[in-house]
Amino acid sequence: MSKQFVENITNMEDDFAQWYTDVVRKAKLVDYSSVRGSMIIRPYGYQIWENIKIELDKRIKETGHENVYMPLFIPESLLQKEKDHIEGFAPEVAWVTHGGEEELQERLCVRPTSEVLFGEHYKNIIHSYRDLPKLYNQWSNVVRWEKTTRPFLRTLEFLWQEGHTCHETEEEAIEETEKMLDVYSKICEEFLAIPVIKGKKTDQEKFAGATFTYTVESLMHDGKALQTATSHFLGDGFAKAFGIEFLDRNGELQNVQQTSWGFTTRVIGAMIMVHGDNRGLVLPPKVAPTQVMILPIAQHKEGVLDHAYSIKNRLSSIARVGIDSSDKQPGWKFNEYEMLGVPLRLEVGPRDIEKEQVVLVRRDTGDKFTVSLEELETKIEETLSQIQANLYKKAKERMTEKTTSVTNLEDFQNVLQEGNQLIKAMWCGNSACENIIKEKTGATSRCIPFNQESISAQCVCCNHQVQHMVYWAKAY
Amino acid sequence: MSKQFVENITNMEDDFAQWYTDVVRKAKLVDYSSVRGSMIIRPYGYQIWENIKIELDKRIKETGHENVYMPLFIPESLLQKEKDHIEGFAPEVAWVTHGGEEELQERLCVRPTSEVLFGEHYKNIIHSYRDLPKLYNQWSNVVRWEKTTRPFLRTLEFLWQEGHTCHETEEEAIEETEKMLDVYSKICEEFLAIPVIKGKKTDQEKFAGATFTYTVESLMHDGKALQTATSHFLGDGFAKAFGIEFLDRNGELQNVQQTSWGFTTRVIGAMIMVHGDNRGLVLPPKVAPTQVMILPIAQHKEGVLDHAYSIKNRLSSIARVGIDSSDKQPGWKFNEYEMLGVPLRLEVGPRDIEKEQVVLVRRDTGDKFTVSLEELETKIEETLSQIQANLYKKAKERMTEKTTSVTNLEDFQNVLQEGNQLIKAMWCGNSACENIIKEKTGATSRCIPFNQESISAQCVCCNHQVQHMVYWAKAY
Repeated sequence: MSKQFVENITNMEDDFAQWYTDVVRKAKLVDYSSVRGSMIIRPYGYQIWENIKIELDKRIKETGHENVYMPLFIPESLLQKEKDHIEGFAPEVAWVTHGGEEELQERLCVRPTSEVLFGEHYKNIIHSYRDLPKLYNQWSNVVRWEKTTRPFLRTLEFLWQEGHTCHETEEEAIEETEKMLDVYSKICEEFLAIPVIKGKKTDQEKFAGATFTYTVESLMHDGKALQTATSHFLGDGFAKAFGIEFLDRNGELQNVQQTSWGFTTRVIGAMIMVHGDNRGLVLPPKVAPTQVMILPIAQHKEGVLDHAYSIKNRLSSIARVGIDSSDKQPGWKFNEYEMLGVPLRLEVGPRDIEKEQVVLVRRDTGDKFTVSLEELETKIEETLSQIQANLYKKAKERMTEKTTSVTNLEDFQNVLQEGNQLIKAMWCGNSACENIIKEKTGATSRCIPFNQESISAQCVCCNHQVQHMVYWAKAY
Repeated sequence: MSKQFVENITNMEDDFAQWYTDVVRKAKLVDYSSVRGSMIIRPYGYQIWENIKIELDKRIKETGHENVYMPLFIPESLLQKEKDHIEGFAPEVAWVTHGGEEELQERLCVRPTSEVLFGEHYKNIIHSYRDLPKLYNQWSNVVRWEKTTRPFLRTLEFLWQEGHTCHETEEEAIEETEKMLDVYSKICEEFLAIPVIKGKKTDQEKFAGATFTYTVESLMHDGKALQTATSHFLGDGFAKAFGIEFLDRNGELQNVQQTSWGFTTRVIGAMIMVHGDNRGLVLPPKVAPTQVMILPIAQHKEGVLDHAYSIKNRLSSIARVGIDSSDKQPGWKFNEYEMLGVPLRLEVGPRDIEKEQVVLVRRDTGDKFTVSLEELETKIEETLSQIQANLYKKAKERMTEKTTSVTNLEDFQNVLQEGNQLIKAMWCGNSACENIIKEKTGATSRCIPFNQESISAQCVCCNHQVQHMVYWAKAY
């Protein structure tokens, strides 16, 4: 690592927020624009999103869902149909008041989420139990008028998918809510190598208009938590507000039971903060736009470049392979592809050609080793799998290390003063206690995990009888 | 074709506009919403768009372009930087004036196109000839405040891709403009089976802010033309307005030369109006979400359903295959999948099982024939290719039939009074003549085709010396 390089990026231990900003800029993931709070997703950042999108879209289709596209604008009167929903979203929507030269008779909001648009459509197309279930999804942009913004984590506009489904019964809808939370937790763990905690949000933290919200929560490098994706059981609240009715199997008119669930570009921020280090981005191989970067050594020497390109061709069927044959210094290249988080560097120079080998360097561990050309494919595939598994393992271990159980508010405060982390503590179910905890510690309830444990017999705040074990943390 | 069915759809000869509306609704491509002028793209319509998108995205990447994502909003001051551009777009943009409860200090327009956003970003990231070319593309939604709207053809919001590139020289940029027009014409002809005319727009019809605009134009069933995609050479107009400068190979500061090009959901409307008939949609096999629909005959009889499903499995590696084993009447099913434009129907019943055959019915010709199980794969692949080729051939023949050359304005008017069609006529290059022609005939200049012919020595309007042969038509 050259000195010049080290000066370019803040150490995460010194200033985590600045480290994050440095990484998203220097790894060329985003650029700022004159639109406050909006980001430009640059090619490298967008390739990462495309890889995630392709994988998630496949899993959404495999679970029986169909993609549709709904309008960007929502008339004010439509947004107001479901009371909790409008109350939750009104403070953070952008309003279109003029079209061309004319003032509109009714304001249009730029969708912050599309429950009401789906609600209106479902009313039109659902009439009988034969029309159910309806399992729709859309990939789109949404806008929320955030005051403070950070690339990927919180932006005025973001990209996401939002699923919206209708079912005959509450049981079926709850099963769907669980199934999609599972899809999210699996793509986080299997694809993004991000360990998650699955659980239910408290009433205070649930989606505006939902009966309940399931969530997958993950822990960042700095000990703060991030809500990575959510899946909501909506009950029949929207169905009643929009009149989505069907004739059931007994010939009786009923409201459908609904769900909605979303996964956003935010997850890229999570990936950066879970895997990144002081040399920059670290990408899990499954997500990485380039999995193996070939750097020819002493490339001016005869045969080196040809050989390097032949390796690239040879590997292109088993991995996403890049090559940098520019005339930049090797030191610059090493740093650059470390910054970009490319999982595996492959060096090949005259000596390697002679010995019929290449040198591999792992981004996650820094391990450097030679591999004979004969076993190249096997070793590359094996190493990429190992990197994927190791990133997950490291993140999981960190999460375990950074989780502390507490039984009283004093300990709760003390532990968080030592450093951000996940706190496990019992809770009585009363939102007054949530508020006191937030005020005294800065931590919010992240979720009531599906895997419950008994830590103590009393609520960590009020000492009354416990209802649940809850994960708490300061959060993004 | 059952009578009940015929009553459901207007004949295109009676009322083409109503026929179009019937098809987009009955083939479940779109639904209307309470958002004026915006459409809901339903699963079947969206699958068509996804198939087009996957193919076009592949071709855009193969020609060296990278995907990015730019913000939805454009501050008013940014939009105003290029004068022709703002003049062209100001009357048709939607304005956001409030965020949450607050009035904004500066209005934001919802992007009608993103030249200015790319302009601002390019200024930040381009400094040297080494940074060029920059070949970016984005898939997004855009908004244009249209007064009169029709699904796919003209909507307040539509989906598209917009390419934006920067080059060192004018020659390179013009080459890019041509290359992307070629990508568009090829995807129209090879994939969508839509024959196109390639040419240049007149100055009056060019993109607001462009030096010139290339276009691919196609002819609908009713003799009206449709601008299917455009590719613009922007020169250095935006580069000067935004200060996109680079140090060239001689160390001198220069403005980049730019292009932009777009392809939209409008093409689905073109496909409907080029291939559709009085029984509904007709989809080219390459685009069709379902290429072969299997209908089991007498499916209650033993073995029929199992056999039908085994055929489905067998074919799934060579085609997108569906099966309808619902208890609906065969007549209903025949009509339904004709309405949906499925290229090939496969019927299989007890007699076919006995004879080790299936029955195939072509959507495009109505031809019905048996195929032995032994040659099933070969025949299906062959027939799908034939359908694809036939749709293109029929459309091409219709275009030839519906093209007339005229040498004077009276003939021009008379020919168009007989029925809509493409008119070939010479033009002096003066926009005054374009305006007169439009006023007297209702036709606009579609393009100055690359393939020029000499039809007469004088302008069809003013009798002055000719500059170009031009295609004219009433247009969508």
